[in-house]
Amino acid sequence: MKIVLIGAGNAGFHLGCRLKECGEDILQVFSRNLLHAKELGEKIEARFIDDLDQTDRHADLYILAVHDDAIAEVAEKLATLGLREKFVVHTSGATPKTVFENTGLLRYGVFYPLQTFSKKRRPDFTQIPLCIDADLEADLEILRQLAQKISPNVFVINDEERAVLHVAAVFVNNFANHLFHAGHTILTSENLPFDLLLPLMRETVAKLEAGTPADMQTGPAIRGDEATIRRHLTYLKKFPQFAGLYRTLTESIRATGSE
Amino acid sequence: MKIVLIGAGNAGFHLGCRLKECGEDILQVFSRNLLHAKELGEKIEARFIDDLDQTDRHADLYILAVHDDAIAEVAEKLATLGLREKFVVHTSGATPKTVFENTGLLRYGVFYPLQTFSKKRRPDFTQIPLCIDADLEADLEILRQLAQKISPNVFVINDEERAVLHVAAVFVNNFANHLFHAGHTILTSENLPFDLLLPLMRETVAKLEAGTPADMQTGPAIRGDEATIRRHLTYLKKFPQFAGLYRTLTESIRATGSE
Repeated sequence: MKIVLIGAGNAGFHLGCRLKECGEDILQVFSRNLLHAKELGEKIEARFIDDLDQTDRHADLYILAVHDDAIAEVAEKLATLGLREKFVVHTSGATPKTVFENTGLLRYGVFYPLQTFSKKRRPDFTQIPLCIDADLEADLEILRQLAQKISPNVFVINDEERAVLHVAAVFVNNFANHLFHAGHTILTSENLPFDLLLPLMRETVAKLEAGTPADMQTGPAIRGDEATIRRHLTYLKKFPQFAGLYRTLTESIRATGSE
Repeated sequence: MKIVLIGAGNAGFHLGCRLKECGEDILQVFSRNLLHAKELGEKIEARFIDDLDQTDRHADLYILAVHDDAIAEVAEKLATLGLREKFVVHTSGATPKTVFENTGLLRYGVFYPLQTFSKKRRPDFTQIPLCIDADLEADLEILRQLAQKISPNVFVINDEERAVLHVAAVFVNNFANHLFHAGHTILTSENLPFDLLLPLMRETVAKLEAGTPADMQTGPAIRGDEATIRRHLTYLKKFPQFAGLYRTLTESIRATGSE
């Protein structure tokens, strides 16, 4: 399939590499930052541009891996370039497919890899759920076939479901990572190596293959161990920025941990 | 080494199995619940008892893998049984070594595996940091040699350091698991499979091999994406038990996420 990739950030970069690896023909990479477009373009043998007016008109699929708030604008721009009948998808978990309504485009959908991407780390796409959606059944089939080349985990997920997934992803990724940040801050401030906690963090996730998080909850909050909680809060006077978090999470575990 | 294991809960069970696997001689297993003592005892070819009066007097080491608030009581009991000069350790992250002061025991220490244990899952001890401590250098050396048989990751950690590790462990394990619980509750309530989030959760931890949590933070809170945050909070009216958590964590990421 001939693809134009618009956006060369973390998601665009890794998606572009994976599509190329799976034998797709990336005609062109766009980024507002020409150096980013060039870096990715050279890597996946695609032309690179920083001006949407130069967008190739002959692709089968246009993938918008841009910031959420740029999706509608880029879509409108593509429509004005004579690409109204081309198939355009975005890769955002937070944005409904309806963002494309009133942009002038006639065929659109979503191609959302449910993963967190960093430029430094090469993701294993075979482990990534690909959430696809499109209005037209024929377009959905195009996405399904493309997605199945990249990952065995392909799911048709509509706007409402994707919004739910995105909220849940914020809890298990952004918020969990922030707790890791708290642990990191505390340990490094005390000259203890953060690596000491990595096996515990890995196991916290790995355990969920054997049971629900509620089954797996341990620690002072769920045990109602007031003496330990008081000792921890006394200690956290050294880290007042995390004391409120400790209180809120302890209360929440008590209230909902075993519901 | 001849060992008596007091406590057959999650930590005691797996520690007992690992010690046996490494060739140690577990003379006896105690549990208040005779069935638990029997289950573990039969597994690791140890006698099993539910009465501390029957504790074997001829072990080199007595490991107390009991609840935090039972440690002092069990230690006092052992002292009254004529074991004052025996080496006794507890396995708790939350309890200082000083818990043994005034129990009548003369030689004591700590043998703390920094991990979360569930009966269902067999842990990989080679991945577990073992935090050891003892007052006497000779006793510390006994623990060091024992620990090194079980895991290559052995650290001498004093009471203060262990207290810090324990607070941090609550953040990265108990609290993170609670966020996983929130994600689980939301997805299952909406008839979406929780498994969809597992690759994301694994990657959230795996990424920390490449950078700090602060480096890796993404999402609406760190981006200051108010529109998405508002949409999420509107959605969370369906899950009021988690809305406060969302607000607190979002505020905390804004305040401290990139400090």
